[in-house]
Amino acid sequence: MTRNKTLGDLGEAGIIRLMEANAPKELPSHLKKGIGDDCAVLETAGDSVLLVTTDTLIEGIHFTAQTMPPEALGWKALAVNISDIAAMGGAPHTAFLSVGLQADTKVTFLESFMAGFKTLADKTGVVLAGGDTVESPSSAVVTITLLGDCLKERVVYRSGARVGDDVWVTGPLGNAAAGLFLLQNQGLDVSPEYESLVQTHQKPMPPLKLGKALAQSGLVHAMIDISDGIAKDLGHICEQSGVGSELHGSSIPMSSNLLKLAHEVRKSPLQWAFHGGEDYELLFTASSSDKEKIVLLGTKISGTPPTRIGTIIQEGGTWLKTEKGKEPLRPGGYVHF
Amino acid sequence: MTRNKTLGDLGEAGIIRLMEANAPKELPSHLKKGIGDDCAVLETAGDSVLLVTTDTLIEGIHFTAQTMPPEALGWKALAVNISDIAAMGGAPHTAFLSVGLQADTKVTFLESFMAGFKTLADKTGVVLAGGDTVESPSSAVVTITLLGDCLKERVVYRSGARVGDDVWVTGPLGNAAAGLFLLQNQGLDVSPEYESLVQTHQKPMPPLKLGKALAQSGLVHAMIDISDGIAKDLGHICEQSGVGSELHGSSIPMSSNLLKLAHEVRKSPLQWAFHGGEDYELLFTASSSDKEKIVLLGTKISGTPPTRIGTIIQEGGTWLKTEKGKEPLRPGGYVHF
Repeated sequence: MTRNKTLGDLGEAGIIRLMEANAPKELPSHLKKGIGDDCAVLETAGDSVLLVTTDTLIEGIHFTAQTMPPEALGWKALAVNISDIAAMGGAPHTAFLSVGLQADTKVTFLESFMAGFKTLADKTGVVLAGGDTVESPSSAVVTITLLGDCLKERVVYRSGARVGDDVWVTGPLGNAAAGLFLLQNQGLDVSPEYESLVQTHQKPMPPLKLGKALAQSGLVHAMIDISDGIAKDLGHICEQSGVGSELHGSSIPMSSNLLKLAHEVRKSPLQWAFHGGEDYELLFTASSSDKEKIVLLGTKISGTPPTRIGTIIQEGGTWLKTEKGKEPLRPGGYVHF
Repeated sequence: MTRNKTLGDLGEAGIIRLMEANAPKELPSHLKKGIGDDCAVLETAGDSVLLVTTDTLIEGIHFTAQTMPPEALGWKALAVNISDIAAMGGAPHTAFLSVGLQADTKVTFLESFMAGFKTLADKTGVVLAGGDTVESPSSAVVTITLLGDCLKERVVYRSGARVGDDVWVTGPLGNAAAGLFLLQNQGLDVSPEYESLVQTHQKPMPPLKLGKALAQSGLVHAMIDISDGIAKDLGHICEQSGVGSELHGSSIPMSSNLLKLAHEVRKSPLQWAFHGGEDYELLFTASSSDKEKIVLLGTKISGTPPTRIGTIIQEGGTWLKTEKGKEPLRPGGYVHF
């Protein structure tokens, strides 16, 4: 029976375990962190460490021609990697881009793709230093590997959360999921003001400066980027830190556009906020005695403060507390209100 | 009309130019070499530089289930990247692996793939430090980004060939192409002794130690790995060095198995040797006064000396000299005997 088990049966967690089994149990001296965080962390001869991350987007799985025009695709393929560097507190500098496209793809597609890539690269100080452009028989596929650096003593891992920490998020949640909903339902008669939601899905802008400032402040204990939805991503921090968390339902930051759209199309805004993912905001924990410092720093760097949405607790799991009581918040699960 | 031009029309060289247009004209200080060599070369705080390369293999383009069983695929996806590090004279250390597979792929496929990857990684001191495993709607796709290092003063580029240099190759040519021919014609009734040809196609072993020793000797002026066939790869060295080359037809090293198989199936062995590619041997140039030193070094490291196959000349282009005269050797062109 086992011989016929598929990757679909195995699931994401099982696949990651399989890959980890092929990485060294004991890290070699040049590697401070391998698989299991937003980036790998490599020692260098200087005061900095080298951060490395890689992400793949495949047509038909992560995007379609309907949801992602080529210019947005070039931007987003880089943005998801920048977000990983931001989540360690680093600054990205060098990108390697592999693109697989069908031979009958228009040259203008690749030009637009590269224009989107370069716009974000220029904004964030990233240089394209290599890659591979190959023919693909069907789906477009993009893999970017991004290198960055961070002061050795300031790297923030997923594993540092402590009981009693506040849980913070750098911006509103759910906008990307609401934008994707709009892109997948283009016949809908909705207000034109929702362009910002679509923009968050197509061209997210990770809070790179804030991530770096938070790391350099020394105030942050654990950090991760919100790629899979806060339920799952906060779960990673909790697992790796050996703690649990309790979210305050009424504190979740959501944009007025998101709330209006959800009302218009009769969807749950919290469903988008907790499970939608792809917001590419940062989720972090810090001592509750540093509340004011976090607010001041966030306001100084971004103009608006981060939002305190919960607490790290001893009891395992992620819990959602509302006026109706407390319930487990499972990754991908349905939010009952 | 231009608006309808496809990537197929544009061709590989045109696509590379398009990508280069999105890289900086003037390299930032941390980057010694960007696009255009076997690896990018990044400055570090220490005595070494960081080498980075990335390569993508897509099912239906670079391999099929018939030509590459999963274990061989895992090995080869890493080997093609190791070859790039070897061609700069470096030592690889850290790999990032992105794999896209259909959800109904057997778990045993991924296990075999990882076993092949790990066998070569362990042999070459490479550690898996991260990656991404994603669903692919159809073709399997593998991208590996490999990091390595090399003493700053010892990196060998494609651009250093000088007029009068000897042209050397580290091992026999054409075996991988002959192996591919066997894999694609499995009904053929041929001798079982040809397994070594199939092995070269499926599980090439780049001469990593020799590449490093050649670079460290300071004797080598230019180096590249043979991935696309010697005609094309030597062309890259010549273009980037502003020189030409003349190959001695009778000096091309070919295995006895290759010659026997070519005779048996009435194929041109030189066609395989010049244009087959995927041999993952190294092609390099060195001063003709250092012939003996090169032979001694090669013999010491590999047991057999490299083979001197030609000369760097002033006149542009790659030329093939035989007893019948001199003809241009064009990438992918037909060899007339």
